Amino acid sequence: MNKGRLIVLSAPSGCGKGTMLEQILKDESFFCSISATTRAPRENEIDGKNYYFISREEFRKLIAENGVLEYAEYCGNYYGTPLKPVNEMLENGKNVILEIEVKGAMKVKKLRPDTLMIFILPPSVAELRRRLNKRGTESAEVIEARVAEAASEIKIASQYDYVIVNDALEVAVNDFKAIIKAESMKTEFAGELIDEVIKNA
Amino acid sequence: MNKGRLIVLSAPSGCGKGTMLEQILKDESFFCSISATTRAPRENEIDGKNYYFISREEFRKLIAENGVLEYAEYCGNYYGTPLKPVNEMLENGKNVILEIEVKGAMKVKKLRPDTLMIFILPPSVAELRRRLNKRGTESAEVIEARVAEAASEIKIASQYDYVIVNDALEVAVNDFKAIIKAESMKTEFAGELIDEVIKNA
Repeated sequence: MNKGRLIVLSAPSGCGKGTMLEQILKDESFFCSISATTRAPRENEIDGKNYYFISREEFRKLIAENGVLEYAEYCGNYYGTPLKPVNEMLENGKNVILEIEVKGAMKVKKLRPDTLMIFILPPSVAELRRRLNKRGTESAEVIEARVAEAASEIKIASQYDYVIVNDALEVAVNDFKAIIKAESMKTEFAGELIDEVIKNA
Repeated sequence: MNKGRLIVLSAPSGCGKGTMLEQILKDESFFCSISATTRAPRENEIDGKNYYFISREEFRKLIAENGVLEYAEYCGNYYGTPLKPVNEMLENGKNVILEIEVKGAMKVKKLRPDTLMIFILPPSVAELRRRLNKRGTESAEVIEARVAEAASEIKIASQYDYVIVNDALEVAVNDFKAIIKAESMKTEFAGELIDEVIKNA
């Protein structure tokens, strides 16, 4: 069996990454990595589904043992990607998606240069602002802060391998699938295939 | 308008490249380069469609002026890819396909490293032999010579960017389209797109 591919998927808030992921994960060859965190579970959050909820001591032990692919401290809590389940899924032939922000993504790329780095773009920053406004849940100030953050994240997109413009959900999901399909046909992964074709010539 | 992409498509005889090309060329964003040759036109062959039929003097002049991307001499005649129509089509935003064999392909790659190099594989050499036999037009000897040549060409496939296994026509054509789509999303081509998204932030 072929090993799966490690995939980083990043997007500014409001780019529809969540909805895209929902569609992508209908295909069982994909698995979305679950982060570990030291913050307390919120109501309805399930351990091992939304997050692995662990103690600060357990998290520090993971860090010390190189057991996390990347981690960050945010509002006094640790958040990170435990390495073991990722490696197990890759060995089982699953493509493992890490849904992480740009700083964590750059750490993963450095540690694992063969990671497939995909960035989701909004059609435009104006459209992103419109989408964030449409939610109607945040103040104009918060929205402008998010827009500014998005613009600064988008500037890092050029350090990814691919960009997908999420204008229409179905098109964007198909674009994602085209990238995965094309990557599987790259000759760097085709050595065995070529040997197989030639065998018994 | 974006410039088109130069694409080399190679395949051993019997891999179904012709049928694949027919399907691909239904999409008007693709254009198949027409070779120039010094051999005489056969019955039903049309100048500017099957080949550009030119004299040895004209061909030598093209070579001297760097007017061919690659050329070879075969059975006393020149065959090659005239550069001018290729460049014009690329400027017009067309993806230009060069249907050439491995030696010519390697020359093009050297001259134009940004060429997208795609190799079509048969499902197996045994299947290739079966397909060549099925045609019923050639002797067992000729078929074995073709099979041996195919096996030696397939060994060069690893120097291409992508390999497509042509087991079922429709799947192979979709694989080709996935490669073209994915390539257009590579960040190396996305600089303008990113600028466009950020504009008016």
